[in-house]
Amino acid sequence: MTTIVRRHLFGPGPTNPYPEATEGLARPLLGHLDPVFIDLMDETCERLRAVWDTRNARTLPLSATGSAGMEAAFVNTVRPGDVVVVAVNGLFGRRMCEVAARCGAEVVPVEHAWGSPVDPERVLAAHSNPSIVAAVHAETSTGVCSDIAELGDAVHGASDALLLVDAVTSIGGVELRADDWGIDVGYAGTQKCLGVAPGLAPFTISDRAFERRVERPRSWYLDLGLLGGYVGEAGTNASGGARTYHHTAPVAMVSSLHDGLGRILDEGLDNVWARHAEAGEALRNGLEGLGLELFAEKGYRLPNLTTVKVPDGVDSAAVRRKLLERYDIEIGAGVGDYAASVWRIGLMGPNASPDAVALILSALAETLGR
Amino acid sequence: MTTIVRRHLFGPGPTNPYPEATEGLARPLLGHLDPVFIDLMDETCERLRAVWDTRNARTLPLSATGSAGMEAAFVNTVRPGDVVVVAVNGLFGRRMCEVAARCGAEVVPVEHAWGSPVDPERVLAAHSNPSIVAAVHAETSTGVCSDIAELGDAVHGASDALLLVDAVTSIGGVELRADDWGIDVGYAGTQKCLGVAPGLAPFTISDRAFERRVERPRSWYLDLGLLGGYVGEAGTNASGGARTYHHTAPVAMVSSLHDGLGRILDEGLDNVWARHAEAGEALRNGLEGLGLELFAEKGYRLPNLTTVKVPDGVDSAAVRRKLLERYDIEIGAGVGDYAASVWRIGLMGPNASPDAVALILSALAETLGR
Repeated sequence: MTTIVRRHLFGPGPTNPYPEATEGLARPLLGHLDPVFIDLMDETCERLRAVWDTRNARTLPLSATGSAGMEAAFVNTVRPGDVVVVAVNGLFGRRMCEVAARCGAEVVPVEHAWGSPVDPERVLAAHSNPSIVAAVHAETSTGVCSDIAELGDAVHGASDALLLVDAVTSIGGVELRADDWGIDVGYAGTQKCLGVAPGLAPFTISDRAFERRVERPRSWYLDLGLLGGYVGEAGTNASGGARTYHHTAPVAMVSSLHDGLGRILDEGLDNVWARHAEAGEALRNGLEGLGLELFAEKGYRLPNLTTVKVPDGVDSAAVRRKLLERYDIEIGAGVGDYAASVWRIGLMGPNASPDAVALILSALAETLGR
Repeated sequence: MTTIVRRHLFGPGPTNPYPEATEGLARPLLGHLDPVFIDLMDETCERLRAVWDTRNARTLPLSATGSAGMEAAFVNTVRPGDVVVVAVNGLFGRRMCEVAARCGAEVVPVEHAWGSPVDPERVLAAHSNPSIVAAVHAETSTGVCSDIAELGDAVHGASDALLLVDAVTSIGGVELRADDWGIDVGYAGTQKCLGVAPGLAPFTISDRAFERRVERPRSWYLDLGLLGGYVGEAGTNASGGARTYHHTAPVAMVSSLHDGLGRILDEGLDNVWARHAEAGEALRNGLEGLGLELFAEKGYRLPNLTTVKVPDGVDSAAVRRKLLERYDIEIGAGVGDYAASVWRIGLMGPNASPDAVALILSALAETLGR
């Protein structure tokens, strides 16, 4: 590597990290059993409780990326033959079906048109007595935000099922209330609105779900029963409390997450959400001002990830390549059937800002000749 | 965090990273599909082939810590009912039994005294026709290095079994030759002699083992069939080749590994091994000069991780605490039955150096009053 490139990461993630998160990455490394690191891990879990808006004791950063969070969610809760209803309105709902099936679930997918939100009534009608109902809060493949509060009410009103939610692209960017919405199991990633490099999966599980967990799941690495000792169960959380060696924590990534979360909580979650909302609105207005058409259904558009249709006759990949080569700007292609007909523009974490909006709109206008 | 502490990490890992690895962590973040990152990932895999000494096309950094490497090794190769013979001479051999059992294996453990190396004859005698024989090259819990070349000859001479090897604490510190020794599946960690922060599992699998793999393993995240597209299969490895999105790569950690490996290969593997050997010998001589007794069996002592008996009447934990508080030095306690009677002193990566040897010997002498 002779030249170090710097990019504007305006795709679906990763985003450019908050400066605090980058500083946390490069701090002198601590041992994973060092009392200073144990305090830092405790504080990281506490900060994660704040961004999840939960009191769940078992809230922690899993030592792998968001996709491993999905795996941990299912592998700890699904027994062979369990009925798992999955709301599918994009790629990550589909992936949930695959992961649940590998755990031995009887998967009941509820297909929605891509670009539309999850419909609680259809989800409820899919099965009378599921063990788990799973949905994606913010579909990264389509830019759609579903109403999890409404889904939670519906699910918990109708059955004893656990509600399992993917919050990878929503956490730290839009309102998320794990306890109020009745989320039993939630997982996320660090590289979207939390503004930290990819590599950890913020995870939370309610006592109710933990009590129903699989006792000896097929994954040792993601076994929440063993991980309790790793981060310190409630009651041993205080500094100096008992810790069990499970695996070596990814110390640098945890330090980075700790500092990134500190930045977000200092700003205030409401303010952070408002900043993402403003950037998203400005971006949508600007894109429509350029004569472009938005993809996600109106009323359900994520502020932090905007999907826009590629105009007829425009080579989607050529535009993305030019943005990268000329402006050092990364935006995302679409997914699946929409790979060549949709762009995904993410303004997440520190990029939820007026300068980022101005830059992408200007570069896109110039590239498209509009 | 008001004060940033800096530690001398002389325990069983993590070690202090090479400076190049820390710089790699904090470089401007790239997208995981950026052509610059794809080249960097290719080069990282190529460098991993060098430290594994293998031509295996499927050599890559898994996106989780070394313990997930162990899980990936078994979950991709074990079908329910398969006989897996595990040489157990420490904690990590025991863990292999647990992980293999969760994959449905009929596990045949071959117990050895802790502190002694694996005995190929006993391993061979344990079962006439196993699917897999598994062993730990460098037992982190005891400081013992087993002869994997000899084990490989024995296993491959006697059966068609795959040889599965844990190289977490050996890679980049002592001689390791995946191809010559007949290792079919190997996994490691970044935080020991590779001198990189914890968070990735360098992994390699032979074509023979890959062909025999489980087609749809219970883990989606660690499914090597899917991960082939993630790093680029042979034939699509060239820049611009086809990549499949599987999960978001932990970009910062991969950049760090890339740069740490560059440092090691610039120095030359032979020189790196010699440096670890010299540091280990100087440490052992110094410890014996202080009247201390070594734990691991003579002839099988790891240069990079030395185990030493706690003298009678000495409070093991108090000594470790004093080293940490007074000198900012971390050393490790023992494991299991030896938790209070053994210390583990690691000199790995940049710490395999005369100044580290001088520091730990001097601080230990002062602390013990010798």
